[in-house]
Amino acid sequence: MDEDNLFIFTIEVLGTIAFAISGIRLAAAKSFDWFGAYIVGLVTAIGGGTLRDLLLGIPVFWMQSGMYLAVTFLSLVTVIIFRKALVKGMRTLFIFDAIGLALFVVVGIEKSFAADFPAWVAIAMGIITGSFGGVTRDILINEEPLFFRKDIYATACLAGGLIYWLVMNIPGTTPIVPQICCAVTVVGLRIAAVHFNWALPILKVDPKDLPEQ
Amino acid sequence: MDEDNLFIFTIEVLGTIAFAISGIRLAAAKSFDWFGAYIVGLVTAIGGGTLRDLLLGIPVFWMQSGMYLAVTFLSLVTVIIFRKALVKGMRTLFIFDAIGLALFVVVGIEKSFAADFPAWVAIAMGIITGSFGGVTRDILINEEPLFFRKDIYATACLAGGLIYWLVMNIPGTTPIVPQICCAVTVVGLRIAAVHFNWALPILKVDPKDLPEQ
Amino acid sequence: MDEDNLFIFTIEVLGTIAFAISGIRLAAAKSFDWFGAYIVGLVTAIGGGTLRDLLLGIPVFWMQSGMYLAVTFLSLVTVIIFRKALVKGMRTLFIFDAIGLALFVVVGIEKSFAADFPAWVAIAMGIITGSFGGVTRDILINEEPLFFRKDIYATACLAGGLIYWLVMNIPGTTPIVPQICCAVTVVGLRIAAVHFNWALPILKVDPKDLPEQ
Repeated sequence: MDEDNLFIFTIEVLGTIAFAISGIRLAAAKSFDWFGAYIVGLVTAIGGGTLRDLLLGIPVFWMQSGMYLAVTFLSLVTVIIFRKALVKGMRTLFIFDAIGLALFVVVGIEKSFAADFPAWVAIAMGIITGSFGGVTRDILINEEPLFFRKDIYATACLAGGLIYWLVMNIPGTTPIVPQICCAVTVVGLRIAAVHFNWALPILKVDPKDLPEQ
Repeated sequence: MDEDNLFIFTIEVLGTIAFAISGIRLAAAKSFDWFGAYIVGLVTAIGGGTLRDLLLGIPVFWMQSGMYLAVTFLSLVTVIIFRKALVKGMRTLFIFDAIGLALFVVVGIEKSFAADFPAWVAIAMGIITGSFGGVTRDILINEEPLFFRKDIYATACLAGGLIYWLVMNIPGTTPIVPQICCAVTVVGLRIAAVHFNWALPILKVDPKDLPEQ
Repeated sequence: MDEDNLFIFTIEVLGTIAFAISGIRLAAAKSFDWFGAYIVGLVTAIGGGTLRDLLLGIPVFWMQSGMYLAVTFLSLVTVIIFRKALVKGMRTLFIFDAIGLALFVVVGIEKSFAADFPAWVAIAMGIITGSFGGVTRDILINEEPLFFRKDIYATACLAGGLIYWLVMNIPGTTPIVPQICCAVTVVGLRIAAVHFNWALPILKVDPKDLPEQ
């Protein structure tokens, strides 16, 4: 594994832990059994990257290294042991989750460029890598996907992707610069969105005006 | 792009608009934010074709041209601006939706034959292209997929596919003829189904006779 | 088709019948129409294998032979005709379902090895082949996937996969031996789990301790 791949691999593992724990905690709130909680954690962590790899037509990342399944297992053990602390430490976890999101967006963009796709596909893959795991998690626990009406989430991924693309096109930029700018944008927007209660406008139609369908 | 591909591309774009608007309106009824509504519209429009391309093992269509994402964006803007008119104009939209469905079935069949699959796979892909986007939309907004108990919908796709196959086997038919026959069948059946309240028989079992599972 | 492929094909067909009937019966309990019930039955039967084939990057199995769609159709006809008997005969069906599960796990493992993946991927694919169809079924009928809190189900697939791997590594074993050991493990665990009400520990967190997300 060369240095570049090692970097991507490292941030994938960190993001995996953050996302797995978020999934496992929601599964716990629904009284899933251990295996069920593991699966929900796993799907949250690897769902986005799996869809990305299928769409890009490249080998699915978590089937190339046992690390992802193992790291999710350790996350489950951690949640089982440190349940109380984890619940209290929700603020720490939020930061963790925001960093995971940022890392996933960067990985999604990098992999798309490596597979020779144009910038707009890369941005879309960044959003999918960051968001789709959480959507799948919400479908599995039979909740309406939260990101559709919450403080900006997928929008933060989109903004990060656009920043990546802008910075990338500045002449003389080294590859790490757009990565950092993208990640900082995502984390910053997530923190600001939660802190200031930012939200996108709601698209509202009076339900009784709607035709049956 | 040769003429044949241009034709398929054109009908894909028209179908995309029809399906995107149907998804965006349902998202609006659920008070999704703009981005959420965009995603639901996009998934409704490209979900079926995406699953088809993954199953056929061919490059995913919407990653080859930015048109689909752009057209869905214009659909969102249209819904935001012309909300009232769109709601009142539900009859126009239904026709639009039926035409979109017919076009998607034709595209699904064409692409399967182009990838050297037999007729029965092509018919299945026609149904998937036409129906799966709507199923995904219903899953995302956490409703039971409507097409399972509504006036014939997937059945209209099936009938269109069978007509395509029958007409295709008439000696001396030019390629456009089965396409038109298929599309007319789908649109006709959809209009008739809604107008005459056609429905398939319900498969009914007394729930208390069912074992827990 | 050589002998080995014929064997896999045969057990796939038997498993397909068992799973299709389980899906069709649940769709009946929800008053789906015939086509809807067919789709739910089909998805239950082929959903796991479809995801497996997409992940492995190999041609999707049910697109290679019309047998799977045909067998599901016959399952639907059977349920329509023998409704009462099928409901009464739930005990027979449970055994049928357990055998189907065991066969699917074996097929998932075999195909993964055939595609040159390591043992831990093969075990994961065994679990996916066995479980994912049922998860998709539950999502389609808008129920929380049952396997997350039911008597051990995916866990039985995991145990079967581990046994396969252990037996496979015994020097001098012929290929059929791990297959049989795996299948017996899965069926035995399913029967024992239902009979003795075995279940995994629940992962419990007080919901009001959880942060909004």
